[in-house]
Amino acid sequence: MFEPEGFWRDLVAFTWNIKTCEGRAEIKAMLAARLADVRPRNFQAKSAEWFTFETALGRGIGHLRLREDRCWTLLTTLQELKGHEEKAGPNRLKLPVPRAQGLGIAEQPYVLIIGGGQGGIALAARLRRLGVPALVVEKNERAGDSWRKRYKSLCLHDPVWYDHMPYIPFPSHWPVFSPKDKIADWLEMYTRVMELDYWTSTLCKRARFSEAANEWEVLVMRDGEPHTLRPTHLVLATGMSGFPQVPQVPGADTFVGRIVHSSRYGAGAEWEGKQCIVVGSGTSAHDICADLVESGAASVTMIQRAPTIVAKSETLMDLAWGPLYSEEALARGITTELADLSVASVPFKVLPELQRPIYAEMGKRDAELYSGLEKAGFQYHFGEDGSGIHSLYLRRGAGYYIETGASQMIIERRIKVRNASVHSVDQRKVRLSDGSELAADLVVFATGYGSMSQWAEQLISKEVADRVGKVWGLGSDTKADPGPWQGELRNMWKPTQQANLWFHGGNLMQSRHYSLYLALQLKARFERLRTPVY
Amino acid sequence: MFEPEGFWRDLVAFTWNIKTCEGRAEIKAMLAARLADVRPRNFQAKSAEWFTFETALGRGIGHLRLREDRCWTLLTTLQELKGHEEKAGPNRLKLPVPRAQGLGIAEQPYVLIIGGGQGGIALAARLRRLGVPALVVEKNERAGDSWRKRYKSLCLHDPVWYDHMPYIPFPSHWPVFSPKDKIADWLEMYTRVMELDYWTSTLCKRARFSEAANEWEVLVMRDGEPHTLRPTHLVLATGMSGFPQVPQVPGADTFVGRIVHSSRYGAGAEWEGKQCIVVGSGTSAHDICADLVESGAASVTMIQRAPTIVAKSETLMDLAWGPLYSEEALARGITTELADLSVASVPFKVLPELQRPIYAEMGKRDAELYSGLEKAGFQYHFGEDGSGIHSLYLRRGAGYYIETGASQMIIERRIKVRNASVHSVDQRKVRLSDGSELAADLVVFATGYGSMSQWAEQLISKEVADRVGKVWGLGSDTKADPGPWQGELRNMWKPTQQANLWFHGGNLMQSRHYSLYLALQLKARFERLRTPVY
Repeated sequence: MFEPEGFWRDLVAFTWNIKTCEGRAEIKAMLAARLADVRPRNFQAKSAEWFTFETALGRGIGHLRLREDRCWTLLTTLQELKGHEEKAGPNRLKLPVPRAQGLGIAEQPYVLIIGGGQGGIALAARLRRLGVPALVVEKNERAGDSWRKRYKSLCLHDPVWYDHMPYIPFPSHWPVFSPKDKIADWLEMYTRVMELDYWTSTLCKRARFSEAANEWEVLVMRDGEPHTLRPTHLVLATGMSGFPQVPQVPGADTFVGRIVHSSRYGAGAEWEGKQCIVVGSGTSAHDICADLVESGAASVTMIQRAPTIVAKSETLMDLAWGPLYSEEALARGITTELADLSVASVPFKVLPELQRPIYAEMGKRDAELYSGLEKAGFQYHFGEDGSGIHSLYLRRGAGYYIETGASQMIIERRIKVRNASVHSVDQRKVRLSDGSELAADLVVFATGYGSMSQWAEQLISKEVADRVGKVWGLGSDTKADPGPWQGELRNMWKPTQQANLWFHGGNLMQSRHYSLYLALQLKARFERLRTPVY
Repeated sequence: MFEPEGFWRDLVAFTWNIKTCEGRAEIKAMLAARLADVRPRNFQAKSAEWFTFETALGRGIGHLRLREDRCWTLLTTLQELKGHEEKAGPNRLKLPVPRAQGLGIAEQPYVLIIGGGQGGIALAARLRRLGVPALVVEKNERAGDSWRKRYKSLCLHDPVWYDHMPYIPFPSHWPVFSPKDKIADWLEMYTRVMELDYWTSTLCKRARFSEAANEWEVLVMRDGEPHTLRPTHLVLATGMSGFPQVPQVPGADTFVGRIVHSSRYGAGAEWEGKQCIVVGSGTSAHDICADLVESGAASVTMIQRAPTIVAKSETLMDLAWGPLYSEEALARGITTELADLSVASVPFKVLPELQRPIYAEMGKRDAELYSGLEKAGFQYHFGEDGSGIHSLYLRRGAGYYIETGASQMIIERRIKVRNASVHSVDQRKVRLSDGSELAADLVVFATGYGSMSQWAEQLISKEVADRVGKVWGLGSDTKADPGPWQGELRNMWKPTQQANLWFHGGNLMQSRHYSLYLALQLKARFERLRTPVY
């Protein structure tokens, strides 16, 4: 049935895991191990490619891609557990079940989610609808602050159709690119109307797993007071971009201007007439440079340390997002859910070859942009293997910019570019690796964020972090994503080497879609179903 | 084309009014007056009954009901103004237009909406999407307080499918019957994410229209400080149930217990072991009686002054709402918008004859309930002409109860019923019109609310209120709705005898649906389109 190089990607339905089997041998081995237990049945075609099915425990949706009458790619996804469906739609309750009082105080949550950004919130919403007691702890004062507190000019660079939360889509007048505060307010409203158990101003200090008790002991500071929680499961949803990475620069203590990480950059107004340096060339670096230019900084210089993918927003929309996430897609019946499943149906191994033609076309269509950047000394590329932003995001979560204005400023030399790194800082000057010096009042390190595994190390222990290993990345053997090849994102939304520890995160689309599979895995455990992990 | 007794109901599309023409002569007269101006065209059938069309200025949806090949009922509705469409869906903006700062201070609103309940909020949301500067003033501290501050046990008696706000439907797990606080929180979130200009803690004191300036001068107290607003249009959205009606009872000053209007009744807990009297037999009276019984009051007596319509919630859902507002209806493709238009397609003249069979069937199906109520001394009926709740609501907005438990308590004598009125009060006793006396610690007057025209009198002047006349009611020549027959609700959502004064309100369904037509009338005036009112 499968072609020799065929793929079977399973999201929890067959494997109680997130797993791609590559080639006939792996597929055969998985089936041998799991078929008797899963007992798949009742396959019903819904279209040429889509089908529904049941397993012993659940109901699923699948997708099949044929090539010369043989199966090239197969996707199977668990959508709900029989007898444990969400109480929604025709299944909704007449009157609400009164909300449990005092979760985390009178009663312990089954799941504790560290981090109340879009990821933690989406997961908590799904768990709430599934009736799993879950508590979110968020260090900021208000839900949405992880967006609200970022630099003033921040807008989403992904279009609105890609960004919905589960259950309550943005209303139809929502702009294509939402400003950060609009997203922040939406998240705050969402925690409220979804009636999530959500503690603000609560910082997680330490978590220890007790094998004996099969539960975590988690110390949090809530409004400054210590409080111990004892959840069965712990989910780190602390953000792909939660752990600021600031290089140690010699002489920083002598600098009389200001040095900040991009996560602490506020608004450009106070830098009017000042000389500003932004280290890095990803999204934040571009946004901050543009904000400084618009605020009237005397000079803005971007220190580019490595080639960066640049893609025009319109072109990306047209070639990459549009077929799945757009008004046109909706008009063709491609709902957000169907779009998410379509994306999931492409095995990660196959993704680069499907993405490369998009970027080849982009290079032609936007030739003017790229030649302009080149002349301005900006080093652009389409990724090591030409497979673009989506691949790069899966490999390392950074290293690109979706052009919404800053590239044009580079072309017009309103943002100057230097290909170098920072060697040292001295009083009012920044010395670059090429030996040159720049006067500076402000140095912004838009140098990205550490891995989510750093959170595991900080909150749990180095031993656990080491045992779990790298989080995120595919093992593509490209920069910052060493091999061996994994076939899936490492440790994301699936069981890890530490019992009852889970990682959740990513962009709004991933938070929305994968929170479903993580929620179902947690629900199954809450209901004490058998969940043998393949 | 029309049968002699045919109806043409127009919502703003042909008449710049809300108007039902009854019979060939009225229809002919309307067409003679309006056809040349409206220039209807491009009629396209969408199904056997539904069609779309255009006018010189807008686009509309219509509905046609044939009887023996002749038109029995025709509905025409304006849905949008050409060139002034909402910026939504395929039409949405890339980036949001920055929200105007200081509406009501730096800049005057074009529309001032007095009252920020569901009605004011729905209208403000539509005006915001249409780009009409509108300000809502609400006397309470928080949006939603008009629900939040009601008695603790209050739940909607209308099912969820009937209750959506425009643009952001409730998520699919919303219970069939929402508790008041859930609605309150939803409204508060809604004002926020729809970015409405909404002043809380703002009480309107006085409004005067200046013919010369063609604007209102409105004095409000905002957080206790006087502030003058100068809007062009004034909308009273102060609530069908905004003006508590408390009968003057002799001896009230001697009463040593507590006398409250239902709008000020809080929770039953403090009346445990006490003797309680509730005057009235509508929804609030039933709810409050049930709350007192459940809170352990020593005795609860309902003073029924007149026969009341009672209908079981399930039966009403099954026979009346279900075909249009339910999961089954949604599965048949009847969206909320289509359901609203379907309701609107029935001329008010025809409504009673369509409703009567429902209540005849209800009487049979729930015979046990009704015989039980009769034995308990409760006077029920299905309206003066047997046409039930929907008709009664349009005639006088009160006088019914949707059974969700209190009727059963009456049958079980846990709520006692007396057919009488209150003659006087004395120390700890209530004397009834039949001469009997009841001991009482608490007397709740669930005696309803005054007309919206009382707001016009209080805020503007008696002269304006008299000129405008009665608000609400059809002229059905039944109790509290004197003739002559109007064919539409008096003064609701349409031009009144006072220039630039509008009334908005009703239940959640009416607030949702009719806010569209009121918003389009205001938008047309804002854009200085010709709006000759027929």
